[in-house]
Amino acid sequence: MSATQMQLGDVAVSIEDGIATLTLDRRPHNAITTETAVALAEFFRSAAERSDVRVVLLTAAGPIFCAGADIGDMSGIAERTTLDYRNGYTAHTKLFEAMWETEVPVISAVGGKVAGIGWMLALLADLVVADQDVRWTHTFTRRGMVPHAGDPYFLTRLIPFRRLMEISLLSDGVSGSTLEEWGIVNRAVPADAVVATARELAERLAVGPTRSLGMTKQLYRRALDLPIQAALTDERASVALIATTHDRAEGLAAFVEGRPPVFLGR
Amino acid sequence: MSATQMQLGDVAVSIEDGIATLTLDRRPHNAITTETAVALAEFFRSAAERSDVRVVLLTAAGPIFCAGADIGDMSGIAERTTLDYRNGYTAHTKLFEAMWETEVPVISAVGGKVAGIGWMLALLADLVVADQDVRWTHTFTRRGMVPHAGDPYFLTRLIPFRRLMEISLLSDGVSGSTLEEWGIVNRAVPADAVVATARELAERLAVGPTRSLGMTKQLYRRALDLPIQAALTDERASVALIATTHDRAEGLAAFVEGRPPVFLGR
Amino acid sequence: MSATQMQLGDVAVSIEDGIATLTLDRRPHNAITTETAVALAEFFRSAAERSDVRVVLLTAAGPIFCAGADIGDMSGIAERTTLDYRNGYTAHTKLFEAMWETEVPVISAVGGKVAGIGWMLALLADLVVADQDVRWTHTFTRRGMVPHAGDPYFLTRLIPFRRLMEISLLSDGVSGSTLEEWGIVNRAVPADAVVATARELAERLAVGPTRSLGMTKQLYRRALDLPIQAALTDERASVALIATTHDRAEGLAAFVEGRPPVFLGR
Repeated sequence: MSATQMQLGDVAVSIEDGIATLTLDRRPHNAITTETAVALAEFFRSAAERSDVRVVLLTAAGPIFCAGADIGDMSGIAERTTLDYRNGYTAHTKLFEAMWETEVPVISAVGGKVAGIGWMLALLADLVVADQDVRWTHTFTRRGMVPHAGDPYFLTRLIPFRRLMEISLLSDGVSGSTLEEWGIVNRAVPADAVVATARELAERLAVGPTRSLGMTKQLYRRALDLPIQAALTDERASVALIATTHDRAEGLAAFVEGRPPVFLGR
Repeated sequence: MSATQMQLGDVAVSIEDGIATLTLDRRPHNAITTETAVALAEFFRSAAERSDVRVVLLTAAGPIFCAGADIGDMSGIAERTTLDYRNGYTAHTKLFEAMWETEVPVISAVGGKVAGIGWMLALLADLVVADQDVRWTHTFTRRGMVPHAGDPYFLTRLIPFRRLMEISLLSDGVSGSTLEEWGIVNRAVPADAVVATARELAERLAVGPTRSLGMTKQLYRRALDLPIQAALTDERASVALIATTHDRAEGLAAFVEGRPPVFLGR
Repeated sequence: MSATQMQLGDVAVSIEDGIATLTLDRRPHNAITTETAVALAEFFRSAAERSDVRVVLLTAAGPIFCAGADIGDMSGIAERTTLDYRNGYTAHTKLFEAMWETEVPVISAVGGKVAGIGWMLALLADLVVADQDVRWTHTFTRRGMVPHAGDPYFLTRLIPFRRLMEISLLSDGVSGSTLEEWGIVNRAVPADAVVATARELAERLAVGPTRSLGMTKQLYRRALDLPIQAALTDERASVALIATTHDRAEGLAAFVEGRPPVFLGR
């Protein structure tokens, strides 16, 4: 089967063997435009409905993974009222909400520099592979800004609090190795191993029980903010739903028969 | 005083010198049956009312600490509707809720392998001692399942989020040493030191101010999910209640008199 | 410009070059009296309104940073009812609430021992520099007490849960080096480098975009306890407000012009 190709704004998508490889390419900065944010958000919202996608591998072209938002044409900015500023990042916020809620497992291969909202593009994946030597910079306070597009909500859930203060207030570069030590990324590897490591993980997940993987990560993400009884109710609904899938029956049968399971992703 | 002995399903209980040693023994897998879950839950609910129990030391027999749930007789499973599946783990869920809410301090000595809901049996203790070389496996997604019996709620509170994604989606074995590095267990020690290390901790807590220890850990567990004013109200009630105990008065007197306190557990 | 001096209970304040240096001095224990708590709380509440304060550097005199609360005259204690005990730490609680909510960036230089509510005085700063060799002790359960004055709420948000159990239930001394490893302080340095390291950080922040730094840390602190849509609403209001500041415009202009920004703190 040849690869399916499509374009989501500045993101090239290639789908093959269950892996949707997304490559952001708007060099040199790989800033996310509104158009890209909208298209990418829609992709994450509907990815779980595609039978050809069992995992997303998210990467970027060039030495900068993503340096932030490109809010485009600034010509209207002089007419903006203070209140208008509240809505300056709506499309980008919706992208990160979609990444947070998506059912499809996502792996990011972060070979380049990360700045601003690029932190969310990298960290909202389920598993994150980073170049051990490349430095990420939070940037917002360097420019007199406040973090936005969901950053305060998401980063408090993904970065240990004391480290987040250091990252955001000092805005110094932090290497992939340090991010791994701090529990912020899963793997920090040499530059030439970033994509290969991430792809290997993607290949593993691509033959996994897609619904089980997807519902598992969704349960965890939602449980972060649910009180216990609501989390238990949520969990019970997922237990019932997963019982209707082929892969759940296959997982049980394979276990009973002492053989490796063959998951179909449904 | 000779030891008090009792049996809670597959868990043998021996109470001596303030330490209730609980040993799960349903080898080889030490899977938790519904009967064991119910009996153990009741024990954790009422343990704080027993004057002979000042700390629980939870351990298991054999090379597997706990490999998950034994949901028993599967003969009725064919008649289960999808909705019925929601209630498949009710007894086990109640066990882990009881462990989470119990006032009595709990130490787990995890010398064997851990899988599935065994993670909660091990980690819902206040202090966890693990064999540095033994690997824990989360297992759920390996079988096409979703985590259940409280796992999404509890593990998001006990395991740093990025590590939890790795543990749950890859389901690779993670050694006790790695769990210690990741802040998931308190101590990772050689196999022959697991029980001794845990027992030493239990002996320390067994002569401690039982109510103070118990109410302290309960305050922290509840505070995880309370907004600030509710947490402060909760704290103030505990401050008042602890002021009525012998051990609080003894702690103050010993401090003023510059001598070690003699706590009685009440 | 010569330094502005003032006294807040037992805390000497010296304001110079945008840095308010606060030195707690009630040796030997540096216990916080009610009077000090009230004065210090008021300072943190109003600090953001002072144009001469762009960062707070919090430190203490002598070998003990802060050993807890000094609840003062105990003569009335015999008449206290159980219910009265609920209000024993009101002033101290309000101090820590004020530190948590303050807009001004705070750096603590913790050169001495820390015990009891001293943990909050040290850790409620945004960046914490500790002596690598000095041990902190939580103390509450050693005395048969429960943690109070906000400790259950704040420490669950600032200390990884498993470590918090160890710190609170065992109440052993934990060195600055270990606290750094556990992600509880930002920097653990030799004794003679504590103040210099903290001052260097303070000097950096003192020429930073004060409002951006302050609103950033407030967004993160609030986001810890907000559901996603409330956090996004909160963020959007801050984005609009920051757009009205000199420093935001300067940050943007400097970036466009490729020069270092000159922030004025407004």
